[in-house]
Amino acid sequence: MGLSPKVFHQLCNIVGKEYCTRSAEDQVCYAYDATRRFYPPEAVVFPKDAQDVSAILQLANTHGFYVTPRGAGSGMSGGSLPVAGGIAMVMTRFDRILTIDTDNLVAVAQPGVVTGVFQRAVESKGLFYPPDPSSADFSTLGGNLAECAGGVRALKYGVTRDYVLGMEVVLPTGEIVRVGVQTTKGVVGYDLARLIVGSEGTLGVITEMTLRLLPLPETSRTMLAVYDRMETAAEAVAEIIRRGIIPRAIEYMDNTAIRCVENLLDAGLPVDAEAILLIEVDGNESETRLLLDRIVSVLEGECRGRIQVAETREEAARMWKARKAISPALRRYGTGKLNEDIVVPRNRIPDMVAKIRSLAEKTGLTMLSFGHAGDGNIHFNVMFDKDDARQTSLALEAVDAVFDYTLALGGTMSGEHGVGIAKAPYMKKEISDDVLALMKRIKRAFDPAGILNPGKMLL
Amino acid sequence: MGLSPKVFHQLCNIVGKEYCTRSAEDQVCYAYDATRRFYPPEAVVFPKDAQDVSAILQLANTHGFYVTPRGAGSGMSGGSLPVAGGIAMVMTRFDRILTIDTDNLVAVAQPGVVTGVFQRAVESKGLFYPPDPSSADFSTLGGNLAECAGGVRALKYGVTRDYVLGMEVVLPTGEIVRVGVQTTKGVVGYDLARLIVGSEGTLGVITEMTLRLLPLPETSRTMLAVYDRMETAAEAVAEIIRRGIIPRAIEYMDNTAIRCVENLLDAGLPVDAEAILLIEVDGNESETRLLLDRIVSVLEGECRGRIQVAETREEAARMWKARKAISPALRRYGTGKLNEDIVVPRNRIPDMVAKIRSLAEKTGLTMLSFGHAGDGNIHFNVMFDKDDARQTSLALEAVDAVFDYTLALGGTMSGEHGVGIAKAPYMKKEISDDVLALMKRIKRAFDPAGILNPGKMLL
Repeated sequence: MGLSPKVFHQLCNIVGKEYCTRSAEDQVCYAYDATRRFYPPEAVVFPKDAQDVSAILQLANTHGFYVTPRGAGSGMSGGSLPVAGGIAMVMTRFDRILTIDTDNLVAVAQPGVVTGVFQRAVESKGLFYPPDPSSADFSTLGGNLAECAGGVRALKYGVTRDYVLGMEVVLPTGEIVRVGVQTTKGVVGYDLARLIVGSEGTLGVITEMTLRLLPLPETSRTMLAVYDRMETAAEAVAEIIRRGIIPRAIEYMDNTAIRCVENLLDAGLPVDAEAILLIEVDGNESETRLLLDRIVSVLEGECRGRIQVAETREEAARMWKARKAISPALRRYGTGKLNEDIVVPRNRIPDMVAKIRSLAEKTGLTMLSFGHAGDGNIHFNVMFDKDDARQTSLALEAVDAVFDYTLALGGTMSGEHGVGIAKAPYMKKEISDDVLALMKRIKRAFDPAGILNPGKMLL
Repeated sequence: MGLSPKVFHQLCNIVGKEYCTRSAEDQVCYAYDATRRFYPPEAVVFPKDAQDVSAILQLANTHGFYVTPRGAGSGMSGGSLPVAGGIAMVMTRFDRILTIDTDNLVAVAQPGVVTGVFQRAVESKGLFYPPDPSSADFSTLGGNLAECAGGVRALKYGVTRDYVLGMEVVLPTGEIVRVGVQTTKGVVGYDLARLIVGSEGTLGVITEMTLRLLPLPETSRTMLAVYDRMETAAEAVAEIIRRGIIPRAIEYMDNTAIRCVENLLDAGLPVDAEAILLIEVDGNESETRLLLDRIVSVLEGECRGRIQVAETREEAARMWKARKAISPALRRYGTGKLNEDIVVPRNRIPDMVAKIRSLAEKTGLTMLSFGHAGDGNIHFNVMFDKDDARQTSLALEAVDAVFDYTLALGGTMSGEHGVGIAKAPYMKKEISDDVLALMKRIKRAFDPAGILNPGKMLL
């Protein structure tokens, strides 16, 4: 659509000259997210409040340019990339935590607050914000809400959606509105708050959020269990849950993931194991001890694995370090990486792991899986040489096959990363034409001119 | 719009003659819900499957008649009443539980299954469906989803919305679609499942649902605490939660509620008390005992109340009997009853109770409150003589004042009953014109002809 000098000048008038740029450097800096795809915006603006956002969106409707909101740019599916041009609207100036209400267990915050900063702020008051994406140290609450971020604690505590009570949102047409409630319950009118959560910034710009908190668990305990067979590991997970125990995390790494990490860290991981489970329970002291004992008794029974219980915080941190090193460890195995976050029914994880192994054997590419065994949310990675057309095409075919198998098992193509542009080409595998048409009508009901974050999710 | 004999005949062809009626008796039988308002439908049909529902809705679009879906007709806000005429579509033939998956903790059921029947079915397999509206013994899952029912366990476990993973839905235009997922996580496309939950049957007809389950808690313990001052009771609630204890229920009854129940049951309740708290914890044996001890230590400390811990199941049942007798007990106090379910921040309950007391004194009407102290969800009741115009008008004024005060405290007008027609006149107090206009556009995106459940929520 092309941003005229006159419109750029108007944008600068709204946010102030120092918060408005179209320099080549800034265009490059705001052209990326964690997908490493490159879409430079025509201009970058940094609004300070909802009024600024509203004025920008009104201007976009008048002059027909696209606006793509952006937090820290750490998204995994391209949700914040200005793929159709227009401006990047960076929300980092919305960086205040407004209230932490210890009586009512709610907090009010702005979208540019870094999730980890928010977590620590509420923890310092004895409260707990459970959503914990791996990106928590740099991603923002606004981005987490837009993508409905998950993370390692979702098994027990749910995902971002479960902690959003209400929001102030600027609609694509510029109206500043409140949706949802400030209380833990509320059923007046359509549930717009939860419709906007996970809509990837296509239905409105979040300018304030009211979040539900929990009391901070007194303590947590962490353990590893090492398995020679993936099926036994999966059975252990099933048996833990069948006994009514819901740990806050049950993570797994497959054999390839274990070897990649060991190559990087030299941490003494068992490179012949088919799977490692990383299990963490929380609660008060006695409850946590009890949960741990019950899990150990499962893992020493028919679901026998080699168990290691962390006796100190440092030991627990070392266990997590291995899990968190997987993504960095992969860089050595190819210049190209496809990173998917499929979900399958928990008891079908072994089938999916076997499928991935057979695809790796067939293609000769490095493929691995790890992730949230407790809720069936598998991070599937394929490494390849991105300058090699054959490898690239084999990698893409493998992703295609994994998505098909995921859906055949009753799963979904994304548990927490979203669709954005990365999964948009596959969206019709999962979403029927009728539903996609309905989503497009909903998008139009919010954004008749189609100016807000176009080109995402096929919408 | 008027249903012609020809269209009635076509309806009968779809569902079969024995499942299609326009007799005066059936019109009367399906004219009510728990609001006791009277809106007879022109015809009543009982579809057996999604294809029937689709054919009926397509016919409605072609011939321009209204369709209002209905479960057990136990709604508190008129959501299932055919207020604009047309047909009542009764979903009771959708009465099968299709699967209960103990490995993945999900169940698939049809909307006409009675909630209590479903609860007991999953409990017999060691699983737990936490949403537990007071109507569970007769209301249906479909109605519970449509209204996003809550209940006494919401403090710890959340509401119906938190247990819906996916649904088969017939759109108002007749398409049979699937929304949401079958797994515990999923973020592909807009969150239509959660948009439809709580939309009061205005956006689609649910024909199948996938519900998330939990392991069944081993046991529960119940206790009462009696208070001379509402403020002390509220402080006890706050202190319990501040200490990181989340009971599955913290219910309260105010003094008027206590006296009404005592008049009915003669159960030895303390009629001079200003408040009774009914607290229930659950978990495994040792965890539950620990929670109970911790609560007792709070209640024996600065938040002293007269405590009674149920030592047997029968004792616990007696405690719940008093709580559940409140609504029936009120019948003696007037022919008219207004029953609202406002939510305020938990620590503002004493303010609201004081407000209600002053309104009762000013008007001379019986007013009381009880409900879910833990999540601030207050059932506020006004009793009056409905043939007395002055009393009726005073009662309505009191509701108006309570809603205004609710919103001033940062609350919402409904925590679990929904808007329907009962709260529609007040909807603009809480929902801004911009948001209401947006909701209307969403309604139109689903239902361009406006044939499905018209006249609800001002939509």
